[in-house]
Amino acid sequence: MELTRIAVIGTGLIGTSVALAMRERGCAVLLGDRDERSLQLAIELGAGTELTPGAPVDLAVLAVPPAAVAATLLDAQKRGLAHFYTDVASVKAMPLVQAMELGCDMTTFVAGHPLAGRERSGPAAARSDLFLGRPWALCPTPQATASAVAAVTALTKACGAEPLTVDAIEHDEAVALVSHGPHVVSAAMAARLAQASGTALGLAGQGVRDVTRIAASDPALWIGILTANAGPVADVLDAVAQDLAVAAAMLRAGTEGDEAVAEVAAGQLADLLGRGNAGRGKIPGKHGGRPSAYAVVSVLIPDRPGELARLFQATGEAGVNIEDLAIEHSPGLPVGVAELSVKPEAAETLAAELRARGWSVPG
Amino acid sequence: MELTRIAVIGTGLIGTSVALAMRERGCAVLLGDRDERSLQLAIELGAGTELTPGAPVDLAVLAVPPAAVAATLLDAQKRGLAHFYTDVASVKAMPLVQAMELGCDMTTFVAGHPLAGRERSGPAAARSDLFLGRPWALCPTPQATASAVAAVTALTKACGAEPLTVDAIEHDEAVALVSHGPHVVSAAMAARLAQASGTALGLAGQGVRDVTRIAASDPALWIGILTANAGPVADVLDAVAQDLAVAAAMLRAGTEGDEAVAEVAAGQLADLLGRGNAGRGKIPGKHGGRPSAYAVVSVLIPDRPGELARLFQATGEAGVNIEDLAIEHSPGLPVGVAELSVKPEAAETLAAELRARGWSVPG
Repeated sequence: MELTRIAVIGTGLIGTSVALAMRERGCAVLLGDRDERSLQLAIELGAGTELTPGAPVDLAVLAVPPAAVAATLLDAQKRGLAHFYTDVASVKAMPLVQAMELGCDMTTFVAGHPLAGRERSGPAAARSDLFLGRPWALCPTPQATASAVAAVTALTKACGAEPLTVDAIEHDEAVALVSHGPHVVSAAMAARLAQASGTALGLAGQGVRDVTRIAASDPALWIGILTANAGPVADVLDAVAQDLAVAAAMLRAGTEGDEAVAEVAAGQLADLLGRGNAGRGKIPGKHGGRPSAYAVVSVLIPDRPGELARLFQATGEAGVNIEDLAIEHSPGLPVGVAELSVKPEAAETLAAELRARGWSVPG
Repeated sequence: MELTRIAVIGTGLIGTSVALAMRERGCAVLLGDRDERSLQLAIELGAGTELTPGAPVDLAVLAVPPAAVAATLLDAQKRGLAHFYTDVASVKAMPLVQAMELGCDMTTFVAGHPLAGRERSGPAAARSDLFLGRPWALCPTPQATASAVAAVTALTKACGAEPLTVDAIEHDEAVALVSHGPHVVSAAMAARLAQASGTALGLAGQGVRDVTRIAASDPALWIGILTANAGPVADVLDAVAQDLAVAAAMLRAGTEGDEAVAEVAAGQLADLLGRGNAGRGKIPGKHGGRPSAYAVVSVLIPDRPGELARLFQATGEAGVNIEDLAIEHSPGLPVGVAELSVKPEAAETLAAELRARGWSVPG
């Protein structure tokens, strides 16, 4: 099924990213959001045009918090907004139950959840490639028609994601384990750093940065997700808390001077670390990172004002469009490294042009 | 002080990386390890030549587990291996106490700890740039001579690291918070995945991958570290376990149907997530300063060559130094978003100056 006209209700990170992805496929996108600023920003970003009453679109994507899905669906169906409907909430059982209780038409609705996100939220953080290679869970009920399932599946594929059909309850337990639980664990570890000394923070390396990265996410958004999946998330947190409490007890027991006790304690700790190894090893490598269609050209840049401007002046003169940029910079060192992502065919030209202009381009 | 000849005892990840870094600086490196295979691999990698009896080297780097530091130091000093000594263990108080108890010469020893590592271990995982820009803690005792401190400081700088003098007890509490604690927390979360269903694992995204990345580390190596820093690590784990247990209880309380209770529970959860935000925000960014030291100004940029140069021209004219930059860009769409990190006091000026020059600066 080809989607030619869709509506996106909710122009946050996920909604706007869906809209951008569909715009790239040439699909018309109508945008709605109760927050006028968010809506205007999404429109300015090229995500679509403002939703106005008219003929039903092929598919409406309800990109609203879990607790708002059912009411938004009912309202949209009453208005005859679309032939088919889906949502993108991180929790599936609660919105489905609420939709049935509200008397929504379940034949045209297929619940969905793209497993993609960022620490940042809002339309300005959206990107059309957010779903590339990512799983996108679909939870069709027995009432959903084959056409509804086909329409929502077409959306996931058009966004470059991998559709995955799963039962709603199973989905919620799964995401408690691989998303919602890790989120709270990350936050609880990060919370320890709130009162940390400058010395401690100065010694922070990549490990703690990775463990706490998702703790930077928007609390309000996450409260909505966690409370909508309370039971399964609580089970995961209790189990992790239990393991950590035992580990702490074992560490203390090991310092009491009894060698036999210390050995048992070390064995318990080793068991936990071993289970950690095993669990980590279970995560598939397939969807490991964002697939990159770009080549990276690294350039050394002196650490002083104006150097980036000079560099971009040079890339402009080389006629090469920079698709993305990361700056690696070691504190106190006189140079940093700018990693310029460009279309692969442009990489060699760019490197040569930059070298010709006196830039140091290693490799 | 220029180091021209050093010895590295222990050719694991850290020892071999130190050796490679010093070889790159033209320093002669003598290598020793009880494990003959590890030693030969390090030599094959170009990390140095085999240690044989001879004149004392400038500095000996003891790259052995925490529990082995003191005995290795005593042995090396008895042999007159070097003029000065340091170690690289992740724990500092215990080895120092043991060294004093064993009667080591504390005038020539300066304990050290490079804050760098990888999930992989052994000489094959070594890299000469492992320490580039990383903090390297030094814990000189009052007995250590100025020459000993100078020699070890020279090592850290030759490896491209940032030496940081810190009290041993304070160091151990700090690394419990920013390294050892996060390690066990990562393992405990990863342990939950050991029995996960294929569906759950199929839904794993980047978040859980980041949270559990360091859980892939070698348990044997980490048991040695954790038990050597038992008290401070146990304190961190207890606090995290407590926060997680409360979060689980709050989630369950929120499902009991009492709205007032649910509100209090959500408030408690929001508090934890908020503290997580705060703690995460405390971790210094790439430039070594606090990340909160920078404000982010977002600018919409048309997707065509030369626009970034134009933008940086404009920031230059505004007299504002760009500390960091990220570009969010959806391939094929007409605009992207440049996120400019600047000193907070410059943010408003920059936004105003850019708007005055016709740039779209949301918010």
